[in-house]
Amino acid sequence: MSNDSVNKPYVIGLDLGGTNSVFGIVDARGEIKATTAIKTQGYDKVEDYVDASVEALKVIIEQVGGIETIKAMGIGAPNGNYYNGTIEFAPNLAWAHNGVVPLAKLFSERLDNIPVGLTNDANAAAIGEMTYGVARGMKNFIVITLGTGVGSGIVINGQLVYGCDGFAGELGHVIVRRENGRPCGCGRSGCLEAYCSATGVARTARELLSKTQEPSLLRELDPEAITSLDVSIAAGKGDALAKHIYEFTGEMLGEACADFAAFSSPEAFIFFGGMTKAGDLIMDPIKRSYDKNVLKIFKGKAKFLVSGLDGSSAAVLGASAVGWEM
Amino acid sequence: MSNDSVNKPYVIGLDLGGTNSVFGIVDARGEIKATTAIKTQGYDKVEDYVDASVEALKVIIEQVGGIETIKAMGIGAPNGNYYNGTIEFAPNLAWAHNGVVPLAKLFSERLDNIPVGLTNDANAAAIGEMTYGVARGMKNFIVITLGTGVGSGIVINGQLVYGCDGFAGELGHVIVRRENGRPCGCGRSGCLEAYCSATGVARTARELLSKTQEPSLLRELDPEAITSLDVSIAAGKGDALAKHIYEFTGEMLGEACADFAAFSSPEAFIFFGGMTKAGDLIMDPIKRSYDKNVLKIFKGKAKFLVSGLDGSSAAVLGASAVGWEM
Repeated sequence: MSNDSVNKPYVIGLDLGGTNSVFGIVDARGEIKATTAIKTQGYDKVEDYVDASVEALKVIIEQVGGIETIKAMGIGAPNGNYYNGTIEFAPNLAWAHNGVVPLAKLFSERLDNIPVGLTNDANAAAIGEMTYGVARGMKNFIVITLGTGVGSGIVINGQLVYGCDGFAGELGHVIVRRENGRPCGCGRSGCLEAYCSATGVARTARELLSKTQEPSLLRELDPEAITSLDVSIAAGKGDALAKHIYEFTGEMLGEACADFAAFSSPEAFIFFGGMTKAGDLIMDPIKRSYDKNVLKIFKGKAKFLVSGLDGSSAAVLGASAVGWEM
Repeated sequence: MSNDSVNKPYVIGLDLGGTNSVFGIVDARGEIKATTAIKTQGYDKVEDYVDASVEALKVIIEQVGGIETIKAMGIGAPNGNYYNGTIEFAPNLAWAHNGVVPLAKLFSERLDNIPVGLTNDANAAAIGEMTYGVARGMKNFIVITLGTGVGSGIVINGQLVYGCDGFAGELGHVIVRRENGRPCGCGRSGCLEAYCSATGVARTARELLSKTQEPSLLRELDPEAITSLDVSIAAGKGDALAKHIYEFTGEMLGEACADFAAFSSPEAFIFFGGMTKAGDLIMDPIKRSYDKNVLKIFKGKAKFLVSGLDGSSAAVLGASAVGWEM
């Protein structure tokens, strides 16, 4: 252990979501020593958001022995740019939807100038898997986050892929249906995210319910209010239509992963986020479709794994891992 | 300059093609000091191929001052595996179509144990662009080779992407048409290569000629014998149908590059190979289609370039650059 790890045994992780901002103080083994949270919204200016954050942080920093024990801070945030430590044009953040916000710098200035790293949430998840999760020891893997959207963090030769501008790894926005593709939040059509996110799964449910007469537990629900969790619960009860929705979603993810293999031939695809709770319901069709679609030389090589990070704290751990990289 | 560069100022480059094997002895500035060639085919066993190669090489090695002046050898070859120095199941090579051939080791043993590196031809082209060509100083770029097939060499963080098995970067085999896609040589359907290779362009020509009644210079040719060069010549003469073929091809390449940007956000896409001789006929529709299809955050960032390596010697230079990396 280096001197630094002895004197400064902790990093702060911030999982900055559209609704909540969750802070954790984490040690080198991935143990969360203290945690706190504030609402992300309700601030017009980023300075006010940082003020509220630092006030909440002070309490847990004191709990672990003061700012002198903190090596660095890592932030996972939507539209986070690793190179600049900025959040750029994040549509869901009132204080960052309309420009470039130097969030890493603002936190560093308020926290005794400790180094602060920032990246998008999917990249943070990938670093988290490499540091504490199922990707320990792996040099080439792809994390795919299945949540409200579909995100990705790509690791090649042991390094996260940021590209020329800090925004690489937007695999939720590769086009999987070129003709008659579903409109996507990004303004284009046919993106993976429009089908395989939690909202995409709910859309698939509504489409299938309106197109067919097949009986289903989902027909008892208001179609507009159906969520991917409802589909998961119905599938768990053996509902054929709900299972079909996961088949459809998994097949598409498997096709997409087959293309991703042609890019970076990863050792593993690691799935992260709420939808992975559906377990084999989603993972089995992904694997089957991948085997069917992948180029012959890649067949049977990649593992398909579910995140090894504890669900409730995974995003904070991922963010904290960015701190260790500083 | 290191001692080694002074005492051993040269590397051997081998461009191992399906028809010819071209050897060059190259200095650190990319100047080819001597060159020779043998036929690739006509050998049942790899040992016979290596024997014939070494015999031809001896002459040019003597011309530059003997094997003592040679630092290393680099080979660009179909189905070349960088990690193992092997050629694996290369369908077009009689002496390597049915197994794993340790070509790098065989050459090293016959050449005073100099280090020998081997990779596929598109990766060699990417290393060549980084060492001697338009990618000097770039850390993130993608080379796309448009030849008999479509290949690619991907550089991220200044390193070539080999993936977990040495076979990453098969962008010719991402699926660009999921429904009713053209059969591809790889056994699947809808691959980029089935549309945008030289043979794909010829197929597009035959399809358009049979589907439409549009007058064209290409109608004077035997449809089965049409090549991408014929299409290029006709387009150069202003033939509307031939121009349309390049529009179609370029549009598809632009769509594909837009997806590749979502993966690694490269600083540049660099096109390499015979089809780039069509110049703006192919490059303009690529750029237009990319701008139309790429995710907003990537718009206007990537450059679209044609290889900076001299056409006739580009592949040998690329292969030699693999030698410098050893």
